[in-house]
Amino acid sequence: MTPYALDAATLRSVQPLIDLALAEDIGTGDITSATTIPGDAMGRAVLLAKANGVLAGLPIAAHVMHTVDPRIVFIPLITDGRPITAGERLAEITGPVRSLLTAERTALNFLQRMSGIATATAKYVAAVEGTNARIVDTRKTLPGHRILDKYAVRAGGGSNHRFNLSDGVLIKDNHIAAVGGVTMAISAARAGAPHTLKIEVEVENLEMAKHAVEAGAEIIMLDNMSFADMRACVEMIAGRALTEASGGVTLERVRAIADCGVNLISIGALTHSVTAMDISLDMEA
Amino acid sequence: MTPYALDAATLRSVQPLIDLALAEDIGTGDITSATTIPGDAMGRAVLLAKANGVLAGLPIAAHVMHTVDPRIVFIPLITDGRPITAGERLAEITGPVRSLLTAERTALNFLQRMSGIATATAKYVAAVEGTNARIVDTRKTLPGHRILDKYAVRAGGGSNHRFNLSDGVLIKDNHIAAVGGVTMAISAARAGAPHTLKIEVEVENLEMAKHAVEAGAEIIMLDNMSFADMRACVEMIAGRALTEASGGVTLERVRAIADCGVNLISIGALTHSVTAMDISLDMEA
Amino acid sequence: MTPYALDAATLRSVQPLIDLALAEDIGTGDITSATTIPGDAMGRAVLLAKANGVLAGLPIAAHVMHTVDPRIVFIPLITDGRPITAGERLAEITGPVRSLLTAERTALNFLQRMSGIATATAKYVAAVEGTNARIVDTRKTLPGHRILDKYAVRAGGGSNHRFNLSDGVLIKDNHIAAVGGVTMAISAARAGAPHTLKIEVEVENLEMAKHAVEAGAEIIMLDNMSFADMRACVEMIAGRALTEASGGVTLERVRAIADCGVNLISIGALTHSVTAMDISLDMEA
Amino acid sequence: MTPYALDAATLRSVQPLIDLALAEDIGTGDITSATTIPGDAMGRAVLLAKANGVLAGLPIAAHVMHTVDPRIVFIPLITDGRPITAGERLAEITGPVRSLLTAERTALNFLQRMSGIATATAKYVAAVEGTNARIVDTRKTLPGHRILDKYAVRAGGGSNHRFNLSDGVLIKDNHIAAVGGVTMAISAARAGAPHTLKIEVEVENLEMAKHAVEAGAEIIMLDNMSFADMRACVEMIAGRALTEASGGVTLERVRAIADCGVNLISIGALTHSVTAMDISLDMEA
Amino acid sequence: MTPYALDAATLRSVQPLIDLALAEDIGTGDITSATTIPGDAMGRAVLLAKANGVLAGLPIAAHVMHTVDPRIVFIPLITDGRPITAGERLAEITGPVRSLLTAERTALNFLQRMSGIATATAKYVAAVEGTNARIVDTRKTLPGHRILDKYAVRAGGGSNHRFNLSDGVLIKDNHIAAVGGVTMAISAARAGAPHTLKIEVEVENLEMAKHAVEAGAEIIMLDNMSFADMRACVEMIAGRALTEASGGVTLERVRAIADCGVNLISIGALTHSVTAMDISLDMEA
Amino acid sequence: MTPYALDAATLRSVQPLIDLALAEDIGTGDITSATTIPGDAMGRAVLLAKANGVLAGLPIAAHVMHTVDPRIVFIPLITDGRPITAGERLAEITGPVRSLLTAERTALNFLQRMSGIATATAKYVAAVEGTNARIVDTRKTLPGHRILDKYAVRAGGGSNHRFNLSDGVLIKDNHIAAVGGVTMAISAARAGAPHTLKIEVEVENLEMAKHAVEAGAEIIMLDNMSFADMRACVEMIAGRALTEASGGVTLERVRAIADCGVNLISIGALTHSVTAMDISLDMEA
Repeated sequence: MTPYALDAATLRSVQPLIDLALAEDIGTGDITSATTIPGDAMGRAVLLAKANGVLAGLPIAAHVMHTVDPRIVFIPLITDGRPITAGERLAEITGPVRSLLTAERTALNFLQRMSGIATATAKYVAAVEGTNARIVDTRKTLPGHRILDKYAVRAGGGSNHRFNLSDGVLIKDNHIAAVGGVTMAISAARAGAPHTLKIEVEVENLEMAKHAVEAGAEIIMLDNMSFADMRACVEMIAGRALTEASGGVTLERVRAIADCGVNLISIGALTHSVTAMDISLDMEA
Repeated sequence: MTPYALDAATLRSVQPLIDLALAEDIGTGDITSATTIPGDAMGRAVLLAKANGVLAGLPIAAHVMHTVDPRIVFIPLITDGRPITAGERLAEITGPVRSLLTAERTALNFLQRMSGIATATAKYVAAVEGTNARIVDTRKTLPGHRILDKYAVRAGGGSNHRFNLSDGVLIKDNHIAAVGGVTMAISAARAGAPHTLKIEVEVENLEMAKHAVEAGAEIIMLDNMSFADMRACVEMIAGRALTEASGGVTLERVRAIADCGVNLISIGALTHSVTAMDISLDMEA
Repeated sequence: MTPYALDAATLRSVQPLIDLALAEDIGTGDITSATTIPGDAMGRAVLLAKANGVLAGLPIAAHVMHTVDPRIVFIPLITDGRPITAGERLAEITGPVRSLLTAERTALNFLQRMSGIATATAKYVAAVEGTNARIVDTRKTLPGHRILDKYAVRAGGGSNHRFNLSDGVLIKDNHIAAVGGVTMAISAARAGAPHTLKIEVEVENLEMAKHAVEAGAEIIMLDNMSFADMRACVEMIAGRALTEASGGVTLERVRAIADCGVNLISIGALTHSVTAMDISLDMEA
Repeated sequence: MTPYALDAATLRSVQPLIDLALAEDIGTGDITSATTIPGDAMGRAVLLAKANGVLAGLPIAAHVMHTVDPRIVFIPLITDGRPITAGERLAEITGPVRSLLTAERTALNFLQRMSGIATATAKYVAAVEGTNARIVDTRKTLPGHRILDKYAVRAGGGSNHRFNLSDGVLIKDNHIAAVGGVTMAISAARAGAPHTLKIEVEVENLEMAKHAVEAGAEIIMLDNMSFADMRACVEMIAGRALTEASGGVTLERVRAIADCGVNLISIGALTHSVTAMDISLDMEA
Repeated sequence: MTPYALDAATLRSVQPLIDLALAEDIGTGDITSATTIPGDAMGRAVLLAKANGVLAGLPIAAHVMHTVDPRIVFIPLITDGRPITAGERLAEITGPVRSLLTAERTALNFLQRMSGIATATAKYVAAVEGTNARIVDTRKTLPGHRILDKYAVRAGGGSNHRFNLSDGVLIKDNHIAAVGGVTMAISAARAGAPHTLKIEVEVENLEMAKHAVEAGAEIIMLDNMSFADMRACVEMIAGRALTEASGGVTLERVRAIADCGVNLISIGALTHSVTAMDISLDMEA
Repeated sequence: MTPYALDAATLRSVQPLIDLALAEDIGTGDITSATTIPGDAMGRAVLLAKANGVLAGLPIAAHVMHTVDPRIVFIPLITDGRPITAGERLAEITGPVRSLLTAERTALNFLQRMSGIATATAKYVAAVEGTNARIVDTRKTLPGHRILDKYAVRAGGGSNHRFNLSDGVLIKDNHIAAVGGVTMAISAARAGAPHTLKIEVEVENLEMAKHAVEAGAEIIMLDNMSFADMRACVEMIAGRALTEASGGVTLERVRAIADCGVNLISIGALTHSVTAMDISLDMEA
C-alpha cells in the first residue's frame, strides 16, 4: 500500500492549477519553438536528477506534458517517494519536439518544488526515527498548491494535518475568547461540527492543556512550548488526547521535541520555505 | 513613478488563483469559526512584521480579505517595495471576526511568500549597486504565481525577464540544432516573431557568442561561464547586444559577476527557492 | 450561536451553482419580460409561504436576486431555521420589475427545495426528542447541492455527517475485503489519514461490531440491523465508540431506533427524496 | 427514433454540473479508498435495480464514471426509457476498484433522481392514455439540472414545455398589467420575439381566454381552473390555440383534467418533488 | 418599449466573452501605461463618432470599462439604436488614466463592430419600408458574439431569427432525407420538440413548399428562389404559414424581394461580413 | 518551416472560445436533428470552397467538430495558407450525422472569417511585393479572437504586430503627455519594461520622429503622414530604428506607402472589417 499515491480523481482535481500554469507560461504561443522547430520534428528527452533527494511529482510532470500535447509518451523510470541520486534518469519522454520544449519549464517547476518538499520532509522523518512522533504539515502551503504540497509531504514520509478549514476543528485563542472559555468552545464545536471530526485545541501552557483535555479535546496542540513544558503536558494528558508540538521546529531541535513524547510535530517550513531540487530535462540525440 | 505597481487590471488577472486558493483552504466552510464565533461579532486585527525585510503583496492580502467578505476594511500602513522591520505594523483590518479568521491563512500565505521574494531580491540588488548590472528573474516561478512572483521581484528592486514563451524569443541549443545553426535560427525567429520582440540567444563560449552577435542577436545569454569567459564575451560584444549572465549565481558570487560588465544577471532561485518572511495577523482587543 | 449559519465564504462557494442555474433558466434572455415590461419599471414583491414548515434558503434566494440585478433590495422578514405558517410573509423585495420576474423561478426553486428539506428534518428531530440520538444526513444529496442540502438539514435541527470523501473515513465491506480484514483496514486508514479525522466502520452484525471497536474504530455504523441487534451492539460497545443507525429509517420507525440508544441516526431520504415546500412570489400593487 | 436521446453535444453541456458534483463529493481525495485499496486493484461492479420503475440516466452514470477515471469500462444492459424491475441488472462496470468506489455515490445520485422522475412521469402518462392530452414539465426543476430533469421526463414518456425564458414566450398577469392589457402584451411580444416562437398566455377565466385567443395567442394556459371552466375554454377556443391545463394536478385528478379536452397538462411536481428510485452498485467477486 | 434593450441578466451573460477579450488584450499587464502613467493620474475621455451610422454597444463599452476598473465613471450621451453623425460625442468617461488606456482598445473593438452591424441593418430596414417584410438575422454570427450581434441587429431596426439550435426548429434537406420525406420530418419534429416552438421548413421550389405547408409547417423558408418563384409560393401559401426569403440578399435586391410579399428576409451578411464603424476615444485636457 | 502553424498548445488556448461558441449555438440541444435524424445514422460531408481566396482555419474547423463529437473523422485535403479556388474540396468529414449537422454552423463561422482575413491579407502582401515593407496587423481584432485573427493574417502572408499590451511597448501621445516628454517616456519604459521588448513610439511629424529616435526608440510609428513626410522620416532615421506606417492604408495606397521605404505597414481593417469567405459543408450520398 503506498499511502502517498495520486489517484485518478486527485490528478483531475489539480487540472485547474495546471491549466493556469500552462496559460501563464505559454501566453499566445511559444514563438521561439514555433519559428525554429519544424512542426513534424519528433524527439526524445530524459529527466535527470542533478542532486540527491526524494522524488515527488513525476505523475504531475507527466500530466503537464500530456496536457500540452496528448501525443507525448512519458515513461517513468522510478516512482514518487523513492530516494534519487544526482545523475539518475527519472523518466524518458518522446514526442513532438516543439511540444516537449513548450511543456518543459512548467513540468520542471512542479517537479522541482515537490521533490524539494519531499526531500526536506524525509530529513525530519529520519531525525525522529524510533520515537513516537510523526512529522506533519500545516496549512502554510503555497496558494493553489495545497493538494500537491501535502502529497509531497507524504512522499517524503510525513503525514498530513487537516487539509483545510472544513475537515478539521482547531480551536485557537481567538475562538476561545469569542465564546467565553475553552469548555464552551469545545462544546459549541462538538455540537455544530460533524461527528466525524476530532476537536483540536491550541494551548500555551499546562493549565490550558488541563482545561482542554478535561473539556473533551481530542487533540492538544502545544504551541511554542519549552521542552520542559511539553514533557509536563504529555505526562499530564497521559494518552487521553493526541499531543502535537508546534512552532519553532528546526532540523536541529526536532529530535529533542520528539523525545518529549508528543505524538505529532507540525512544521510550516516544510511547505512555506522550500528549496527546489535541481532536476533537468535534456534532449537526447 | 513606482515601476512595481499592481494596477486594477493586474489585480483582476490574479483572481482565478485567489479563487483556487480560497476554495482549497475553506472547503465546505470554516467549521471552527462558524461554530464558536457569533455571526455578528466584529473585530480588528493588525498585520505585524516579525522579521526585517522588504514588503510585497499587501494589495493581494487586501484583495483576499475582500474576496472572502466585502465588508472587511483593510487599511495599509505602508506600501509594497518599502523596507520593514520586525514589530512594524503593516496594516489594520476590521470586519466580521469569522471572515477575518477564515481569510487569515490564505492572505498570509501570499504575503509571506511575496515578501520573501522581495527581501531576497533586495539583497542581490544591493550587492551589485554601482555596477552596470540589473538583477532579473526567470521563468522558474511557482506554477500559477508568475505575475505575483515577478511583481515581488520588482518590489525588491529587480527587473523582469520575459514573462512567458510568447513575449520574448530565447534561442537555446535545441532550437539551434533543429534549424541547423545559430544564423539560421536567428533569421527564422526574426522572420516569424513580431518585430516588437528582441532576439536572445544562449551561448556557452566566446565563439558561439561571436556567431550570435554577428547574426544579429540583440541579447546574448552567457550560460554558466567562468568570470574570464564572461569578461571576454562582454569585451567582444562591445555594446552591439545586451549581455546576460545566467547559471550558478549566488549572493557571494553576484558582485564578481556584475564586475565582468554584463548588463543583466538572471537568478532562478529568486522565485524557485523562497524563504517565507515571517508576518502574523493578530486580533486586537 | 446559530449553528446553521451561511457565512460570507460559504455563500461565495455556491456561486458556481447559482451561475449554472441562472444561465440555464435565462438562456439568451427573458424575452417575455423584455418585450412587455418597460426597462425602467420598478416594483415590489413579497415571498409568501403557502404551507406550514421550517424555512431554509432565504439568503440563497436573496443572493440569486442580487446576482441577476444588484439593484434589487431584498428584506428578509424571518430567519432560516424558524417555523413558518401558510400565509406568512417571508421577505419583501423591490427592484426593476424585469429583473424580479427574471430571477423569480430560480430563487423559488432553491428556496422551495431547501425549505422542504428543513421541514422534513424537523419532523424527524421532533420524533426523537428526549432521546440520546441526533438526526444526521448522508452523501445522498443532489449533485451540485451538497453544501445547500446539508445546510438545510442543519436549519431543520439535524446534524451533518461527513461532507465528502475527504473529510471523513468510512470503511465499508469492499474496503475490508480489499485489505484483508477489519483490523488491517482500520490500521491502514489510521496510518494514512490525517489524525484529525475519526475512523468509522460499517458493520452488519454484533461480531463485526466487536472486531471493529477492538481494532480502534471510533464510530460504528450499524447497517440495516434489527432493533434487537442494535441494542446488543450499543450495549457491547458501551461508549467506546459512537454508534450510528443507518438504513430503512422512516418517520414511523425513527423513535424506536433512537430508543435503542444509538448516538446518531442517518437518513438518506432527507435529501434524496424531497417534497418541495410551496412558496410563491407575488407582485404587489 | 428515440425522442429522448442524449446526443454527444448534450452530454458535453452537462459536464460543468458533473464537475461540480464530483468536486463536492471527492474534496481533496477519497481517503478511505486511497488508504485501504491497492492502487492497482481491478474489480467489477453491477448496477442493480432495487425497485420497479422506468430507467433514466444510465449514460450520465457512465459519463460520471469516465470522468473520474477514463479506464473504467461501463457496459449498459438496457436503455433509458425502458421499464425495469427490482433485481434487474442495469449495467456492468469494470475498472480500478478505487475509482469505482470514488465515483459510486455521485453516479448513483444522478441515476436515482433521474429514474425517479421518469418513473413518476410514466404514471401520469399512463393515466391519460387514450386522451388528447400530453404530459409536460415546467421550469420547476432542480437548479443546475434543467437539461437532465427534462430529459428524464422525456424518458418517462412525457413532453417538454419551454426549457427557459428565452425559448418560449409566456405572458402572465404581471406582464399584462405592466403593458396595459392582454392585446397589447401579445402585440408587444409578437413584435419583439423571434418569429419562431409561439406566444402563450396564462388566463384565469373564460373571458380572459376569449381576449387572449382573439388577440392571437397561440397557446392558452388555463391556470387552476375548475373542470367546468376548462371544458368551457376548450370549447370556446375550438382549436384556434393549443390549451394547457396547469396547477393542482395530481395522479388522482389528471385523467379528469385530460377528459376536459386540453392538449397539454403541465406538472411541476414531476421535477420539484422527486422520490429517488432505489438503485445500488454492488461489487462482484 | 425599446425592443432592443440589454437587461441586467443579458449583460451578465456576456461577461465570459468580455473576460476573454480583456485577458487576451491585457496579457500580463499594460506595460506602457504602467511605466509611463502615474498610478494616481485621473483623466477624462470622450467617445467620438468619426462617421455617420446607427449606434449599438454603448452599454457594452461601459461594461468593459467597469470590468477593468470599477472606479471609472461612464456617462452615455445617447442611447443605442439612435442615428449618430460624424463628430458627435457619444459618451464622457472619467477615471484613472492608466485604466482608461488599458480598457480603450477592447471597448472600441466591441463598439465599432456592433455599430457597424446596426448601421448596415438600418440600411436594409429602410430599403423595405412600407412593405410587409421584416429584416432578420441568421446564425452566421461571430463565434462567441451571438447575443451581441443579434442585439445590434435589433438596434438597427431588424428582428431576430432563432438564436440557436434549441430555440427554433428548422428542417433542411438533410433532415428530410434522413427521415424519409417532409411530412414525416414535420411530424417527428412536432412530436419531439416543445409545443412552444414553430416548425420551419426550408424549400427550394413551389412543390416542396406545397408539401410543407400541407404537412403543417408554420414557417416556410424560400431558399435562393427567383422573384417569380417567391411570388408563386407566397400566393400559394396564402397566409397559412409565414414566408421567409433567404439567400443572395443584397441592398440592391432587397426591395424587390420584399415586394414579392414575403414576411421575412434573412441576411447572413448582416453579421458575417461587418464593416466596423469608425469611433475613437480621445483624452481631453 | 511554416511560420503560421497552430501548435498543440495554441489550439488548446482557444478552447474557451470554442466552448463559448458551441454553447451559444447549441443551447439545450439541436432539436431539429435530435427529432429527425436517427442517433446511429452515419454520414459523410465535404467542405467546399465557393469562391477564390486563401485558406485559414481548417484545423479550427476540425477542432470544433471533434469538440462536438470525438467520433468525427476530419481529413484535410489542403493546408492553411494555400490559395483555393471555387469548387475545390477542402476536407472530407465522416461521423454521426446528428453531430455533423450540430457542429456545421460553428465550424463554418470560424472558417469563413479566418479565410476572409487570409484572403484580404494576401492581397495587401501581393501589392507590396518587391519592396522593403511587411504587412502587419493591429490590436483591432474581434474580441476573443485575437490569436485566431492574427494566425489568419500569418496564413495570408502577413506578419504580426504585438499581440497585446504586455508583449510590446507602444508609447502614444497620452503617455508622452503624462510623463512630460518623449525622452522621459522612453526612459521610463526602458527602466520598467522587460529588456526583451523593443520600445516603439508613435509620432506625427518629422520633429517628433527625430526626438524619438535620439531618445532611443527602436521602432517609430509614422501615424497618418503624407507620403512626403514618411519619406523624410525614413531618410532621417536612416536605419537607426524600424519604421512603421499606420493609418488610412487602403489596397489602392499601400504600394505607394511601401515605396516610401518603411519597414512595416500596419492595417486595422485586416481584422476589424472582414468579408467572410464563402465555404459550405455539403452532405454526400
